[in-house]
Amino acid sequence: MQFHHNGYVSADPRKQPAAGTGIDRPKQLPDQMDVLVVGTGPAGIIAAAQLSQFPQVHTRIIDRRPSRLEIGQADGIQSRTVETFQAFGFAERITSEAYIIKETTFWNPDPENPECIMRTDRTPDDPTGVSEFPHLVVNQARVIDYFAEYAYNSPARITPDFGWEFKELVVEDGQEYPVKVTLLACGGEAAGLERVVRAKYVVGADGARSNVRRSIGAKLSGDKANHAWGVMDTLALTDFPDVRTKCAIHSGAGSILLIPREGGQLFRLYVDLGEVPEGDNGKVRETPLEEIIQRAKAILNPYTLDVKDIAWHSVYEVGHRLADRFDDVAPDETCIREPRVFITGDACHTHSAKAGQGMNVSMQDGFNLAWKLGYVLTGRSPQSLLRTYSTERKMIARDLIDFDKQWSSIMAATPEALQGQEGAAEFYVRTAEFPAGFMTEYAPSVLTAVHEHQDLAAGFPIGKRFRSSEVMRVADASPRHLGHHHRADGRYRIYVFADRARIGEPGKVATLANWLLESNESPVRRFTPQDADLDSLFDVKVIYQQDYASMNINDAPKIFRPNVGELGLMDYEKVYAAWESSDIFEERQISREGAIIIVRPDMYVSHVLPLDSIQDLAGFFDDVLVPRI
Amino acid sequence: MQFHHNGYVSADPRKQPAAGTGIDRPKQLPDQMDVLVVGTGPAGIIAAAQLSQFPQVHTRIIDRRPSRLEIGQADGIQSRTVETFQAFGFAERITSEAYIIKETTFWNPDPENPECIMRTDRTPDDPTGVSEFPHLVVNQARVIDYFAEYAYNSPARITPDFGWEFKELVVEDGQEYPVKVTLLACGGEAAGLERVVRAKYVVGADGARSNVRRSIGAKLSGDKANHAWGVMDTLALTDFPDVRTKCAIHSGAGSILLIPREGGQLFRLYVDLGEVPEGDNGKVRETPLEEIIQRAKAILNPYTLDVKDIAWHSVYEVGHRLADRFDDVAPDETCIREPRVFITGDACHTHSAKAGQGMNVSMQDGFNLAWKLGYVLTGRSPQSLLRTYSTERKMIARDLIDFDKQWSSIMAATPEALQGQEGAAEFYVRTAEFPAGFMTEYAPSVLTAVHEHQDLAAGFPIGKRFRSSEVMRVADASPRHLGHHHRADGRYRIYVFADRARIGEPGKVATLANWLLESNESPVRRFTPQDADLDSLFDVKVIYQQDYASMNINDAPKIFRPNVGELGLMDYEKVYAAWESSDIFEERQISREGAIIIVRPDMYVSHVLPLDSIQDLAGFFDDVLVPRI
Ligand SMILES: Cc1cc2nc3c(=O)[nH]c(=O)nc-3n(C[C@H](O)[C@H](O)[C@H](O)COP(=O)(O)OP(=O)(O)OC[C@H]3O[C@@H](n4cnc5c(N)ncnc54)[C@H](O)[C@@H]3O)c2cc1C
Ligand SMILES: Cc1cc2nc3c(=O)[nH]c(=O)nc-3n(C[C@H](O)[C@H](O)[C@H](O)COP(=O)(O)OP(=O)(O)OC[C@H]3O[C@@H](n4cnc5c(N)ncnc54)[C@H](O)[C@@H]3O)c2cc1C
Repeated sequence: MQFHHNGYVSADPRKQPAAGTGIDRPKQLPDQMDVLVVGTGPAGIIAAAQLSQFPQVHTRIIDRRPSRLEIGQADGIQSRTVETFQAFGFAERITSEAYIIKETTFWNPDPENPECIMRTDRTPDDPTGVSEFPHLVVNQARVIDYFAEYAYNSPARITPDFGWEFKELVVEDGQEYPVKVTLLACGGEAAGLERVVRAKYVVGADGARSNVRRSIGAKLSGDKANHAWGVMDTLALTDFPDVRTKCAIHSGAGSILLIPREGGQLFRLYVDLGEVPEGDNGKVRETPLEEIIQRAKAILNPYTLDVKDIAWHSVYEVGHRLADRFDDVAPDETCIREPRVFITGDACHTHSAKAGQGMNVSMQDGFNLAWKLGYVLTGRSPQSLLRTYSTERKMIARDLIDFDKQWSSIMAATPEALQGQEGAAEFYVRTAEFPAGFMTEYAPSVLTAVHEHQDLAAGFPIGKRFRSSEVMRVADASPRHLGHHHRADGRYRIYVFADRARIGEPGKVATLANWLLESNESPVRRFTPQDADLDSLFDVKVIYQQDYASMNINDAPKIFRPNVGELGLMDYEKVYAAWESSDIFEERQISREGAIIIVRPDMYVSHVLPLDSIQDLAGFFDDVLVPRI
Repeated sequence: MQFHHNGYVSADPRKQPAAGTGIDRPKQLPDQMDVLVVGTGPAGIIAAAQLSQFPQVHTRIIDRRPSRLEIGQADGIQSRTVETFQAFGFAERITSEAYIIKETTFWNPDPENPECIMRTDRTPDDPTGVSEFPHLVVNQARVIDYFAEYAYNSPARITPDFGWEFKELVVEDGQEYPVKVTLLACGGEAAGLERVVRAKYVVGADGARSNVRRSIGAKLSGDKANHAWGVMDTLALTDFPDVRTKCAIHSGAGSILLIPREGGQLFRLYVDLGEVPEGDNGKVRETPLEEIIQRAKAILNPYTLDVKDIAWHSVYEVGHRLADRFDDVAPDETCIREPRVFITGDACHTHSAKAGQGMNVSMQDGFNLAWKLGYVLTGRSPQSLLRTYSTERKMIARDLIDFDKQWSSIMAATPEALQGQEGAAEFYVRTAEFPAGFMTEYAPSVLTAVHEHQDLAAGFPIGKRFRSSEVMRVADASPRHLGHHHRADGRYRIYVFADRARIGEPGKVATLANWLLESNESPVRRFTPQDADLDSLFDVKVIYQQDYASMNINDAPKIFRPNVGELGLMDYEKVYAAWESSDIFEERQISREGAIIIVRPDMYVSHVLPLDSIQDLAGFFDDVLVPRI
């Protein structure tokens, strides 16, 4: 965490100084704003949190709720999602209050006594170690709380405007604030009153029954039928021995997915209620709690379940549905206009809870979109950048739905139906990397290079999320996760992995560093706003191969130790060495000839280049960034 | 972190429900209170934080400051102190904002060019790994903030009463509130007005010039002379390469201790100003900042120091002084009365900043005292328990002062004077465990057993702080630090390390567990308050030797899985197994025949016993706890 560089900070350094629109932010929802986010769920709140790092942009986030979510909904946090939490500064805190999934056990009918279940398998949750972070379970409300805190502590001081329901919008192209939005006050004195506000952009993060989606005419397609699960957050006495372990239970009486929860006592049961025919019209949602409990008891036989309290329950009925587009640009308009309205999260894709993806993927939608909005609205990027949101995230949603269909049908199958096929345990292990969030891979685009030089850094696949590894910070001899320096501050990262030349020696690194600092073609010079710190758009770091103890940090080229902030102090946190105990060159298969890795603000690898590919580097940002004037 | 056991907790689980005096806590300082803590420094605030877990006790903490400390004073946090932070729930948060000391370098005159310094040594900071936590540097103000937050989030909702200066006190034995305290309002409308309040106990945590100490007639003794250091929290440009590494610098022009600070830029320089003769009367404190800077520049030659900002500076003048007693019981009164007034921290011992101990030892004073006050005031313990505070902490302070004298004289010596002797680097390495906080060892007393059975657990020395190690939590297959379950909740811990018998098998563990639960001689039955949870006074845990995967937690004896809370839910976090990757039996040299380890609320090992020493266990608490009625 870097602070004090503009002078001493006495209080919590996580509370950044207010700036721009954060200084005099209107308490009440104004009539005009740059971005209106509809919905404070995971998709909406992460967008607000990211936009709070762009204080020049006036962002508002509304919800029809009277106040914060208190209970219920999703709870599964994939390990790679915790990497995102790290970027927003709360990974440790949420981990310390969450349940950590270490193993999953599988229960099936005892062949000798088919009315009773028995444990048939036990598998580690993350056998391949997809992340340095654990797989968590914690209520969605707490995830939202942490993002909300971050949004409020960031320069733009964003905090939700509760009690506003989105009704509809129209886009009136050509105006400065082209999106005209009709809202309804809910609660308070004004309850029931309609109000019109205008925004430059609207983010629809209003969940599965999204009105924003309806307003832009996007169509859902997918399964005809939904699958229904009775969900209960349970406090109970039981002699079932795995009540604190995640388990998939199949018995003759049905199936249960058991998820232990934070706090040491609570657990969630997903009790299968089967396929819901199309014409059901929500009748399944009236399934009484008592019936769900009875069914759970039958499935758990011979174990007892003495329910003391159900903190929350719901019939969670969900199909596999995907919106045909994630923005307001109809297929026949693609060359005519740029998007003004976006849908994110459940508003554009729904899938079962089984793979524990809903909240995770929704957050990545919001993260993907928000920095792009920030770049466009601060003039860093052309409007066309916003097209990439729908392209990138729709493909991801489609992959997810395919995966989830397989997983759901295995979970819903009877033990007999699975006979001879791949069972739940095998499928779970084989596909573990997918739900953990490691498989997302963006296709080549303006943002993502083709894989031409991928072999220089096989462990940083282009289009996938950057995967951290430990390095030695030279200035203070402190082993650090390189990726943890990538905070959600909206900056690009350029990692220069050195060749064998030592720090300060002439060679490719020195030439590249000099070019980055001096050349008129260098992206750093072309795109960094005038008067801004040298590292305000590109955070350029170097990782040498030699032993840190033999290095003098002052020998590193200046691009790697810029003078920043009001006092012009030198940044000591950009020069690293490969660390003996965990050599990043080996762990991420980086060529000993060196490589340049470019990582976008939302932590996806954009490009891998040889150290001397200066021309490629010069051109790479041409369609993404606007040169400074 | 355990919560939800009394029903669902929707918000931050770190905010515990208010109870007792925390429910209607008077906003203004009342006329009467159970405990009055004077001073919100490290010693005082930790006492308030611990007492906040005893909501039946009405505790107030005053300070003459108008508000929180903002800057300056101490900044070194020993790794074992971070263990205490863990118990108060903020180890991760403070670590993530702190500077972490990994190495110390030593600089001395270059023999070939004696006007210039050169690096002569580099040593790892914690070569033996005294704790699982790192050695931190972070401003004292932040440490106080975190404890204050904990005190406020705990059941008693304690928060400081600022703007009250302690003037004097008298103890009027025989009254219900025997300590009559005179305060002076400072600031606000009432400024200058005197006021008398009464307390059952007073904790003097009012720093080196303590008025509480004066009031009880305790005498300081020690060196006649002080040593003075110019201290500057510096933001500067420099080409000195180790400015982000802790270094001890000796040059012909004097000596500097350089401590990098949190945030990536700030560093502290302690510039030696030499011995101050007794009659100086504070004149050294007038040394101008400019002079200190000039001296620093001369010492750092040939490196440059271009100061941009001095966030804080002071001439820190301190000798080695120790109060003759730490409470108000004069030597001739020891058998007549029990203590009512205590002094803690700098009020009873001062030493140099060189060994980085001031804040650390002061906190341990406050922790030691506060739980004892909590026990006495809630009727758990006899008043005589309070005698142990002075006995225990005075010995520790004396050891520290001895150590610090050696370290200070080495730091203050000229390079020539050190010729042929043990140098700073060697001394530093040889004695590393001392400053890290590992050497404190309480002598046998009512609280601390003799070492009769120490060989059963050589790695848990009786009288020293419990040192954590990883174990496998059976219920959720989650590797956990056993010691991290010891929160500052005022409870005793009893760890039962099993012999070779497996879970559920008859044998010594089963017999002991049954006796603890059922026998009228069991401390659990004798001392746990009626109507309270089974584990409200003693938190009893078991660690088996067998593989966790082969265990059914429901086979563990009931004392290890009590039903607790309003809903009577079972506690799943008391049954552990030795973990393959880090076998606690080996790491802490625990006998394969098993052992019982008793740890007191402030985390010191009280006793080590064989599994079948039931009679010893029955008697051990006789002088410490009061049987329930
Ligand atoms: C009742 C329920 C139960 C669920 N149970 C599970 C589960 O058991 N397991 C699981 O994995 N996932 C579950 N989910 C899904 C999971 O919560 C979502 O995948 C995840 O929350 C997606 O995040 P989101 O931000 O896209 O939408 P949401 O979290 O749904 O957030 C949408 C927000 O928009 C607000 N909103 C909606 N319409 C409007 C409007 N017109 N105007 C203003 N505000 C509006 C809502 O109040 C809400 O705060 C559940 C969802 C719901 C609604
Ligand atoms: C100016 C200064 C500089 C220091 N510099 C260093 C350093 O560079 N390095 C280092 O390691 N240590 C330093 N120390 C020492 C270190 O801060 C102490 O060892 C540590 O704070 C001890 O904690 P404590 O709680 O005992 O006392 P303190 O932290 O001194 O706290 C005492 C508190 O009591 C309050 N108080 C005092 N008298 C009264 C009264 N009559 N009525 C009400 N309130 C009162 C004070 O306002 C203060 O908040 C410094 C201390 C001071 C005062």
